[in-house]
Amino acid sequence: MPMKKFINAPENLTVELLEGFALAYGRKIALQGKTVLRAAPKSRDKVALVTLGGAGHEPALSGFVGQGMLDASVVGDIFAAPGAPAVLAALQATARDAGTLLVILNHAGDVMAGDMAFEMAIQQGLKVQKILTHEDISAGKDAPLENRRGLVGCIPLYKIAGAAAEAGRSLEDVVAVAQRFNQNMRTLAVAVTAATHPASGGLIGQIADDEMEVGMGQHGEGGGGIMKLASADETAKIMLDKLLDTLPVQAGDKLLVVINGSGATTLMEQYLILRAVNKLLDARGLSMARSLVGEFLTVQEMGGFQMCIAKLDDELIELYDAPCDTPSLTVK
Amino acid sequence: MPMKKFINAPENLTVELLEGFALAYGRKIALQGKTVLRAAPKSRDKVALVTLGGAGHEPALSGFVGQGMLDASVVGDIFAAPGAPAVLAALQATARDAGTLLVILNHAGDVMAGDMAFEMAIQQGLKVQKILTHEDISAGKDAPLENRRGLVGCIPLYKIAGAAAEAGRSLEDVVAVAQRFNQNMRTLAVAVTAATHPASGGLIGQIADDEMEVGMGQHGEGGGGIMKLASADETAKIMLDKLLDTLPVQAGDKLLVVINGSGATTLMEQYLILRAVNKLLDARGLSMARSLVGEFLTVQEMGGFQMCIAKLDDELIELYDAPCDTPSLTVK
Repeated sequence: MPMKKFINAPENLTVELLEGFALAYGRKIALQGKTVLRAAPKSRDKVALVTLGGAGHEPALSGFVGQGMLDASVVGDIFAAPGAPAVLAALQATARDAGTLLVILNHAGDVMAGDMAFEMAIQQGLKVQKILTHEDISAGKDAPLENRRGLVGCIPLYKIAGAAAEAGRSLEDVVAVAQRFNQNMRTLAVAVTAATHPASGGLIGQIADDEMEVGMGQHGEGGGGIMKLASADETAKIMLDKLLDTLPVQAGDKLLVVINGSGATTLMEQYLILRAVNKLLDARGLSMARSLVGEFLTVQEMGGFQMCIAKLDDELIELYDAPCDTPSLTVK
Repeated sequence: MPMKKFINAPENLTVELLEGFALAYGRKIALQGKTVLRAAPKSRDKVALVTLGGAGHEPALSGFVGQGMLDASVVGDIFAAPGAPAVLAALQATARDAGTLLVILNHAGDVMAGDMAFEMAIQQGLKVQKILTHEDISAGKDAPLENRRGLVGCIPLYKIAGAAAEAGRSLEDVVAVAQRFNQNMRTLAVAVTAATHPASGGLIGQIADDEMEVGMGQHGEGGGGIMKLASADETAKIMLDKLLDTLPVQAGDKLLVVINGSGATTLMEQYLILRAVNKLLDARGLSMARSLVGEFLTVQEMGGFQMCIAKLDDELIELYDAPCDTPSLTVK
């Protein structure tokens, strides 16, 4: 079966999708090569937030550049990290006395490029800190770092750190809240249908007709949790139980719940999952204080979703609720 | 192949998805039976906007209830119109001296329920006007009305009429701008992959492996335009040419372009389509003054998209740009 995607020459895909993105959101973002910057840069006395990652996961990551979230997103080709020079250029472009926080999702290429750019920036005397997200629990929360991927949890992390930066907090403070949220979030993915790589035409994931795979990563990496298809309520319970097993919580705790559609799974289904999670949390005396439902970090047209939970405190809730204005998330 | 959707008992699907939706957006909307209302009702001296339609197209239609857009969305079961009594109840709940505009998308069941409720509301002395959207051009712009369906164009129409209502304009004025936009918009859909009906398990649409169908409706109704798969640029041209054939425009005109993903077609592809449309409009001396890209009215996990273009004038642009705050569209 031929690939059923509306694309042109695969080698131009990233450049063309960024051009379309810039046309759609020209009043919020601006392109500089394959780096997405805020159209109206944040004032230089506030901490900047920079991230990096491959294309093909739209709206992530660049959909979250804008007021109250990211200052720059350095884009790589489809599912590929950008080069360290591009990341360094973004750190230079956003350099300021207030400092810059570089957010790296834990995938080998991103870590290599991000770390290298970070070291070069430090050598050049720039004030930079970095944070690594690695909240995937599919391999166990204490698994070796290389097996704990950075998944959709980066989005609320951008939101919280971005709000702290926008409020004029110091780099030290921004890093502290980002780190606190980072340590208190957990994510698990489930996939039901595979997708097609838009450049290579290869299959992303392989799942039998009557099965789903809990733990599959956002490039189709196996998660090991192959099981029979289950209902919305059952699937929510399977995943939430695993997540709560790794997150120390007690009755009365307030949680953020993110249900992130992978691509072909409908918003309708995501609402059913959220409803089930809310009931399960209620039964444990936990409160779903905030929720975020929709497609934030996708895997092309893969069927499935990521469930992310995070323990919130009053300060994190206040930052999470703060206004933002980006292409793919606007909070008044 | 079993249905690969996360649902529970199909007969509870609509109620459950609305419960999840209300949990996600409890600060913006409130449920009353299967009708979605604004959590904070608009002041009674402003015109109300009410719409109706089946579930299964999330985020449409209820995702657009909120400040600056809809006051009520009356929800039917999956792909089914709600009953006239529920529509009447919504007209009664939003009744006011300023009046209410009922927006009906042209599908037989919606028209029947909407018209019946409208007549009953008039008989009860309520001040109500109605508008029918029917911008699908797949059967030709002058085809019999029953072949001109209401597609994604309802979303910018809610936005524009909602802004006029929020600005305190009279019912007559709100109807006039809504009607002007309605007459100047055209939509065409294309599908590349079928979807599964979440309640019946039946196939929505049927498309050969190497083909796409231009004109397919949002319940899989045939559109007649079966053709070989084409690139993003070619598909954009095929569709835009057809749309512009039916919309009187001249060089210098300002257009709104909506690219609405049907479900499985990625945002990445939608950006490519927008980019192609922009180039094609440029070549004709037309300007893409505004654009809206993403999933607004979906057909479950169908692959494809709807392209909607509308001729704007300065007043329509001002209303389109006005702030709104709904679950699925927020403009600052």
